[in-house]
Amino acid sequence: MDFASDNAVGASPRVLEALLAANDGAEPAYGHDCYSHRARALLNEVFECEVSAYFVATGTASNALALGAITPPWGAVFCHHQAHIANDECGAPEMFTAGAKLIGVDGVQGKIDPAALRDILSGFPAGTVRQVQPASLSLSQATECGTLYDCGEIAELAAIAHDRGLAVHMDGARFANALVAIGCTAAEMSRKAGIDVLSFGATKNGALACEAVIFFDEAKAAAFAYQCKRAGHVLSKGRMLGAQMAAYLAGGHWLDLARLANRRAAELSDGLTKVPGVRLAFEPRGNQLFAALPRPVDAALRKAGARYYEWGDRGFGRMLTLGTNDVLVRLVTSFATSADDVRAFVSAARGAA
Amino acid sequence: MDFASDNAVGASPRVLEALLAANDGAEPAYGHDCYSHRARALLNEVFECEVSAYFVATGTASNALALGAITPPWGAVFCHHQAHIANDECGAPEMFTAGAKLIGVDGVQGKIDPAALRDILSGFPAGTVRQVQPASLSLSQATECGTLYDCGEIAELAAIAHDRGLAVHMDGARFANALVAIGCTAAEMSRKAGIDVLSFGATKNGALACEAVIFFDEAKAAAFAYQCKRAGHVLSKGRMLGAQMAAYLAGGHWLDLARLANRRAAELSDGLTKVPGVRLAFEPRGNQLFAALPRPVDAALRKAGARYYEWGDRGFGRMLTLGTNDVLVRLVTSFATSADDVRAFVSAARGAA
Amino acid sequence: MDFASDNAVGASPRVLEALLAANDGAEPAYGHDCYSHRARALLNEVFECEVSAYFVATGTASNALALGAITPPWGAVFCHHQAHIANDECGAPEMFTAGAKLIGVDGVQGKIDPAALRDILSGFPAGTVRQVQPASLSLSQATECGTLYDCGEIAELAAIAHDRGLAVHMDGARFANALVAIGCTAAEMSRKAGIDVLSFGATKNGALACEAVIFFDEAKAAAFAYQCKRAGHVLSKGRMLGAQMAAYLAGGHWLDLARLANRRAAELSDGLTKVPGVRLAFEPRGNQLFAALPRPVDAALRKAGARYYEWGDRGFGRMLTLGTNDVLVRLVTSFATSADDVRAFVSAARGAA
Amino acid sequence: MDFASDNAVGASPRVLEALLAANDGAEPAYGHDCYSHRARALLNEVFECEVSAYFVATGTASNALALGAITPPWGAVFCHHQAHIANDECGAPEMFTAGAKLIGVDGVQGKIDPAALRDILSGFPAGTVRQVQPASLSLSQATECGTLYDCGEIAELAAIAHDRGLAVHMDGARFANALVAIGCTAAEMSRKAGIDVLSFGATKNGALACEAVIFFDEAKAAAFAYQCKRAGHVLSKGRMLGAQMAAYLAGGHWLDLARLANRRAAELSDGLTKVPGVRLAFEPRGNQLFAALPRPVDAALRKAGARYYEWGDRGFGRMLTLGTNDVLVRLVTSFATSADDVRAFVSAARGAA
Repeated sequence: MDFASDNAVGASPRVLEALLAANDGAEPAYGHDCYSHRARALLNEVFECEVSAYFVATGTASNALALGAITPPWGAVFCHHQAHIANDECGAPEMFTAGAKLIGVDGVQGKIDPAALRDILSGFPAGTVRQVQPASLSLSQATECGTLYDCGEIAELAAIAHDRGLAVHMDGARFANALVAIGCTAAEMSRKAGIDVLSFGATKNGALACEAVIFFDEAKAAAFAYQCKRAGHVLSKGRMLGAQMAAYLAGGHWLDLARLANRRAAELSDGLTKVPGVRLAFEPRGNQLFAALPRPVDAALRKAGARYYEWGDRGFGRMLTLGTNDVLVRLVTSFATSADDVRAFVSAARGAA
Repeated sequence: MDFASDNAVGASPRVLEALLAANDGAEPAYGHDCYSHRARALLNEVFECEVSAYFVATGTASNALALGAITPPWGAVFCHHQAHIANDECGAPEMFTAGAKLIGVDGVQGKIDPAALRDILSGFPAGTVRQVQPASLSLSQATECGTLYDCGEIAELAAIAHDRGLAVHMDGARFANALVAIGCTAAEMSRKAGIDVLSFGATKNGALACEAVIFFDEAKAAAFAYQCKRAGHVLSKGRMLGAQMAAYLAGGHWLDLARLANRRAAELSDGLTKVPGVRLAFEPRGNQLFAALPRPVDAALRKAGARYYEWGDRGFGRMLTLGTNDVLVRLVTSFATSADDVRAFVSAARGAA
Repeated sequence: MDFASDNAVGASPRVLEALLAANDGAEPAYGHDCYSHRARALLNEVFECEVSAYFVATGTASNALALGAITPPWGAVFCHHQAHIANDECGAPEMFTAGAKLIGVDGVQGKIDPAALRDILSGFPAGTVRQVQPASLSLSQATECGTLYDCGEIAELAAIAHDRGLAVHMDGARFANALVAIGCTAAEMSRKAGIDVLSFGATKNGALACEAVIFFDEAKAAAFAYQCKRAGHVLSKGRMLGAQMAAYLAGGHWLDLARLANRRAAELSDGLTKVPGVRLAFEPRGNQLFAALPRPVDAALRKAGARYYEWGDRGFGRMLTLGTNDVLVRLVTSFATSADDVRAFVSAARGAA
Repeated sequence: MDFASDNAVGASPRVLEALLAANDGAEPAYGHDCYSHRARALLNEVFECEVSAYFVATGTASNALALGAITPPWGAVFCHHQAHIANDECGAPEMFTAGAKLIGVDGVQGKIDPAALRDILSGFPAGTVRQVQPASLSLSQATECGTLYDCGEIAELAAIAHDRGLAVHMDGARFANALVAIGCTAAEMSRKAGIDVLSFGATKNGALACEAVIFFDEAKAAAFAYQCKRAGHVLSKGRMLGAQMAAYLAGGHWLDLARLANRRAAELSDGLTKVPGVRLAFEPRGNQLFAALPRPVDAALRKAGARYYEWGDRGFGRMLTLGTNDVLVRLVTSFATSADDVRAFVSAARGAA
């Protein structure tokens, strides 16, 4: 009953086997191996165009490197107040941009409000020397609240940004979960909606340690190989990343894994919302649930060995008001979550309610 | 016949199996998994003390993070002119120190000359505001020339550095190969010789992607967790690193692997030096050979499918003078190099001489 | 009728004469001249202790260098949402800290609310690797709203910060104006209230280009000379700064200048508040007024040649609600503002009301 | 008898008067004052084109900001081993480029050798990810040895750099002294010879604290205003810089000052070379002399109160071999050096020889 995070489990068996199979023989180092080539070809298919893709081992690197490619030191990155890049990466974007400023934008349920974005940008008239210069917009899909932007919403925000000359980044740590929930193509949810650079996550959804930074406009990646190398994010035995990503993508494996995780989240949501006193904080569409649990329910679950994080009351524009007897928690499912786990969790909750 | 680099092969079977075995079940993320704990315990044994160890996926990260922990932005890192950190990491040390300066020190065969170190330090009198401030010394063991410092030499250089208040770093990308060649203990070749921070490599010697940054003085690591996180070098599924390192160390596996690689290098050296016209550039003690090959020999080897790098004439203080008909090459063996590979290589060379 | 800023005028005659008088003869460069020594001695007197003082030419440098001395790259600087360091220095603090994060704290009228500071700090539990680490608190005295902290308020905020191990910085670009308004000693308003590092402004109050970074704890300044040099903020002809600062301080000249500026602001306030429809946004205590002007008044003043800035509606916790017919403006007086200027301004306003 | 440096004196009387005259009245802040406009217009005349010019208070800032405008963090700046930017600015170029690497190039008498530049660039083949990327070339005119490049030499080095896509910077801290020694136009010695960005010094030659960063290609200055602001190098009372620079340039004042300084150096050279045992280390063409003094001569001069620096034996490719009884010293004249000072110095030297 581990709902703490989708990074608490290992790799999917298929990804693991690919790692194993890729081990033998000599391969060129630093990403020139055949597995990385294969993974890049698969990404071209997935995004229906020739992409510039770079593989790294962590989501923090993926985000920070991407932002560093599109934001100068005197630039500003606009993102949601609750964005992971702003709060949970110990200043990695600041390091990789050599000191740019992240500026929080409002919006309920973890999603940037277009009017708020327009408004905050209007406070940065062009050429004002005393201010940092708007350089990029970063969207999280799925958001920190487990909510999703639909393609039209992404396009609207991207258009606002592009009008001001900003590049648009997507933090897609849970891209797959969002994609299968929305039911569009990967290209539609990114490139075609105006995303310029995508941090495409695989680790949380079945890889062991593999993310891709994907540029749809090659020009923006002109110096990216150096930026990766300089940051220590070019693996010598690059097959380690290439093999994971290739296996992750091949035959739609990544979508199957995400569907599994999302299904478990839906089952969990269905079960929990029937438990008296349990309420959801946000509309659950991917593999993350945020719920208010009555304290006895929380206590019973903990006692039963369930693992999950209490979620700080950060004013995310929730759909509910927390009662004094409520605990706000985050529950995350993964491809490895079993239906039994979900049943046991719901049952323990029900028993205590 | 791949002698291009020791990162051209995958992981040792035992390391790979450990990765496989570590995949199941939920584990705390970010290095708090049981495998990482086990690996840290093994490092304590290897270095005969309580160390502060952090696992990362690349050698560049390992070096740059270590230097960033002991060098302020206004500091100077002293290293050999030919050091990997100075020439082959695209400025990673500069990035991780926020702009420190690397200062090249002289010395033949890739080894810093103590007199040269003393001399260059004397040019940095304390408190001279217009100069960067001496902060650290970085030694490579094995060196870029495949040569080794013995423990006394390390201790002498470290003492010079400590006298001036510098911290001492060792780039141990090939620590294991050096160690078994010298025949001392790991503690003797590092901590006891005055090393403060060790970049302990495993990737080139049997891991897939795993290095450890090891602090013998915990105080120097006070902010290191943040520095790693901020650089995107904390893996979420930390078991990936912990499992590799634990398997690498357990039962002296790492030493066995290094002995294998070194034995192949010795066989290669024995064979090649008997080929007319082939001469070694440096005393070979680990798993790297630098040799001058007559052009016909080089051509024949390439034709036979051998892979290795031509080595630029960088004036490393070689034991030989290159003839106009010579090609200087680097040959690297690994744990996966077979005796057959060596025999085939030598035989092809002999045939052309 | 220039009320745009206190940096629109030149130096006070006395400061200018000192510059002139200091021009002759040879003096050691880089701050070792006799004028800088004299200025440091005067600062010791003013702050009633031995301070470590460094002179620079701009307020941005003074703030950013000070923050860089007390905040590591992975650190957080807590400051008011409207702080000059956060909004008006194009990211200088981020540059000088090599990428630290500025975190805005709430509080009405430009002043940090102690409860808000406590609350936000509680969201940064010690040792949380994914978060930047609380390192410093920066207070502006006077604030961006022209309001002041009294000594007890400074002490309360400093104590909260010190309890969490943060160093406390004061942006004293208008230190003198605040000091004479409050009526305490310079030491009471800084060192004795818990300030660790003070950016002590002189430029806005009579110097041409001179600010001092003052450390009350010498240990925090250990590397500061290097940090200044490396940032290009050590003037070769250091007498230029030393002579200004010495003349500024000698005989209480700086306090006289500030009293002049504040008196003009008081006269302006008195006059304006009698004009029908004109209302003050904040309690005016130094040399800055923020007022809501009826549009016809604003138009008449502009027509009469008055210069001042319209102030963006940034939700500063004002004492008033802006009417649709109101313009919020900032009016700044300086030592060079004449009583006639004030009278003419008020008269023009009155004529239009 | 102060020959320590050309920054040991104050401003020229004419520059000082201009500062005085510029003090009255209100002027727009941050470089939009009428004096700065006038100074920019004069620079356009001097360089015979529309330049983008920015005024700062120190030479270190001027150099580091210029390099930061043309060198990315993963870039390399090529400069002479003895360049001021490499040795005497405490890492300012590294800070302002966010971590670029300075790479020393050989050449006798402080001047980069074209063959050495070509050779070192050949070691950086395009697109090698493990290496920093060649981005800029920095030439010092006059050099650290007091020698000069003639226009053809500058053009040759600039052409080599441009062929590889590097931008070319000139550290012109003593631009005026070089210019009048060579006898060409300012445009010929910079723009027309291929310089892209010029750090144009005034402080050492008559200003109090004023340097200009001059871009001949406006595109390279696109973000420069932000880079300056962010570094704390935009003075609020910008007239302070504008007035100095305007007075410095008007009516060829700057050239007159440089001619004065150079004439004194020539007189000093003439006198000293007639003193038995005194030998010059480099061909003196501007206002710096490097001489070997017999120890008794050195002692007598010191006793007579002469101030000058002993110059470390840094192997500058001197024209002489130092005897064991010799002291290598640097002697610098300025516009304020009197003929009497020179005579007294020579006479004291002669007396001891």
